[in-house]
Amino acid sequence: MSINTCAEMARACRAASRVVARLNSDSKNTLLLDMAAGLRENMERILSANNRDIELARQAKLSDVLIDRLLLTPARLEAMASAMQDIAALPDPVGEITKTWHRPNGLTVSYQRIPLGVIGIIYESRPNVTADAAALCFKAGNAVFLRGGSEAFHSNQAIVTVLHHALEQHDLQSAAITMPASTERSVIMDMLNCSEDIDLIIPRGGEGLVRFVTENSRIPVIKHYKGVCHQYVDYNADIHMAIDLLVDGKCSRPGVCNALETLLVHEAIAGEFLPRAAAALSRQGVTLRGCEKTRHYVPDIEPATEDDYYAEYLSLTLAIKVVAGLEEAVSHIEQDVSDHTEVIVTRDYENARRFLSLINSSVVLVNASSRFSDGGQLGLGAEIGISTTKLHAYGPMGLESLTTQKFIVTGDGQTRHGLPWE
Amino acid sequence: MSINTCAEMARACRAASRVVARLNSDSKNTLLLDMAAGLRENMERILSANNRDIELARQAKLSDVLIDRLLLTPARLEAMASAMQDIAALPDPVGEITKTWHRPNGLTVSYQRIPLGVIGIIYESRPNVTADAAALCFKAGNAVFLRGGSEAFHSNQAIVTVLHHALEQHDLQSAAITMPASTERSVIMDMLNCSEDIDLIIPRGGEGLVRFVTENSRIPVIKHYKGVCHQYVDYNADIHMAIDLLVDGKCSRPGVCNALETLLVHEAIAGEFLPRAAAALSRQGVTLRGCEKTRHYVPDIEPATEDDYYAEYLSLTLAIKVVAGLEEAVSHIEQDVSDHTEVIVTRDYENARRFLSLINSSVVLVNASSRFSDGGQLGLGAEIGISTTKLHAYGPMGLESLTTQKFIVTGDGQTRHGLPWE
Repeated sequence: MSINTCAEMARACRAASRVVARLNSDSKNTLLLDMAAGLRENMERILSANNRDIELARQAKLSDVLIDRLLLTPARLEAMASAMQDIAALPDPVGEITKTWHRPNGLTVSYQRIPLGVIGIIYESRPNVTADAAALCFKAGNAVFLRGGSEAFHSNQAIVTVLHHALEQHDLQSAAITMPASTERSVIMDMLNCSEDIDLIIPRGGEGLVRFVTENSRIPVIKHYKGVCHQYVDYNADIHMAIDLLVDGKCSRPGVCNALETLLVHEAIAGEFLPRAAAALSRQGVTLRGCEKTRHYVPDIEPATEDDYYAEYLSLTLAIKVVAGLEEAVSHIEQDVSDHTEVIVTRDYENARRFLSLINSSVVLVNASSRFSDGGQLGLGAEIGISTTKLHAYGPMGLESLTTQKFIVTGDGQTRHGLPWE
Repeated sequence: MSINTCAEMARACRAASRVVARLNSDSKNTLLLDMAAGLRENMERILSANNRDIELARQAKLSDVLIDRLLLTPARLEAMASAMQDIAALPDPVGEITKTWHRPNGLTVSYQRIPLGVIGIIYESRPNVTADAAALCFKAGNAVFLRGGSEAFHSNQAIVTVLHHALEQHDLQSAAITMPASTERSVIMDMLNCSEDIDLIIPRGGEGLVRFVTENSRIPVIKHYKGVCHQYVDYNADIHMAIDLLVDGKCSRPGVCNALETLLVHEAIAGEFLPRAAAALSRQGVTLRGCEKTRHYVPDIEPATEDDYYAEYLSLTLAIKVVAGLEEAVSHIEQDVSDHTEVIVTRDYENARRFLSLINSSVVLVNASSRFSDGGQLGLGAEIGISTTKLHAYGPMGLESLTTQKFIVTGDGQTRHGLPWE
């Protein structure tokens, strides 16, 4: 695919975005429901395209994990369609007036939410991202430029064909959901140069992809590297609650970014808490690595190295450190650069307030599981991703993150300088 | 200056930012007032440093315009000090809870404003930016990494010395306001690579500087290329008002980005409006360039080329086009890529609403001058810059633009999955 072609597709996507930006909520919702119906009606066609991808993946000897990510089943397709219906049911962020104020000279000034324009999504093997990302961007009034993984090529094309059909039925340009037919890696570089016609890039995939995109993009990137989430158990924590939150945070889905990776324990509670916590975690198959003080109370675990305290295990391993108090817990957390999600378990009112105030990670929780650091769980309705950088969005991103705000000003002839005019 | 040195300075700035982030409003305000007092007390020292810069600039035969930008006078220094006092008096954005909601499981979720961290400002000749940018970033709880123009080297160093003195008096690290002692251009490249320790880059200067920074930065950049601002005069506009707004928009300060560059006129009012508008503008010394229809009503002006309709003149020149109506005005405005500021002058309620809804430039005004597209004028209190890109901030940027928001979540032991723990 030549640079020109990618640039031309981006330009057509920009033109379509102006039309999408002006659709009212009803039109967008009807279209999303039609897309969901289209996914169900074309289930066989999509599954057979997916079959081709799976065959090729097996021939290429891709790992079972990768093949599982790639695999579509009737249940997974039904989940995709139903997610689209959920997105249709969410409130429309576009047009919302978030603030209005009055100026002494009589001007009325408001902030109003508008779509960002064209959003580029660069992702890897999961074909459900095609439908999810297109639906979320569309609901927020944006056009979308999708670049999925080459291993999901046929599945993605089949899904996009269904979405295009729904757009056409509503007299909308199919460029509103653009996906280049080429899966060459050069397409990514071409996209990242279209800074006039793509407003935002969201890479969804491994750290390698995210770094590549960040380093090569001339378009703003919202990114998520990793999540090294901490739970700090304070001196007077409810031990039962602390263990519940720990097991939920570590074990309920260890492979995701909001799973716990490090446990910090106040030294005054360590003797009572650690043996019970270790027993509960061991029953779930968790491998523990601890500092010297931890191993004093739980002698049969491996020692933790410095690296363990920066590790995103994404597996049933947990690093443990005994600390002298809240200050040490906070400065330990601050050394980590993931800025993702931190939990304090405490009964101390003042320490709860201090933790909330001192920690500037994207999600800070008191007496609640780290696993709530998720757009759906926090009540954002849906999640397009999680940002661990602070610009534009920080933490779980819902539909509002796919919008920006303009100023609207109404007056009755106000000028800044009383110039004579005739 | 070696890359290591710049990286080390950025790391120290990051460390200082954690301390600044935790200062309460009173501490920050007292410090800003002490800085303002310091500028007044050290006026002679700063003016003599500025004298050296001016001497060197004269030897280097810099233009008079550039030398005027560089020049400090007692009045200009007093304005700098007084701007700092104004910033001290503004409400503190840090800590503000912008929204709180409740989840069905009993969790309470809030958005709270926190500082961005370290903000890098890359600017050209005006030494007042040193004090203004440092004060605004500091008020919003950030540390700042300043890189001023080489021609203002001595002035900037003298100002920063005063600010450092105030920081030290309050036991704060001077790294909270970092300015490398080298003015080599390589410092900019070094800064733009410190993506771990600088959170945001704001370039303030000409289009060349902004493009250089954007193309080379691995850190998010908030930028402002240009402002091609339009005023559309609708079929039934109050002609007196339309001329007032036009003269104010074009002539009150033609060299700034919110000055008008293009006038669009509904054909139904063109015959009555254009001759009177042209007369008023001519009296102010404005050169007009018009389309064929314009020249029918105002025959003695130059024809406008296509380029005129994209030009940011920044001088007393105005492009004029007669349009068939609101739709044509809107599509003309959409072809421009500056997305800055647009005005409609109308008495038609429906057209006012349509213009506000259809135009997604950063500031859209009804019956008010384009010159109100300014942070101070819109009531943001102060302005760190104007963004013409949509990520993070769009339009005039006040203190809130120098913050982000974290999620704070309070519960009483909620887990996502009811796992057994022992």
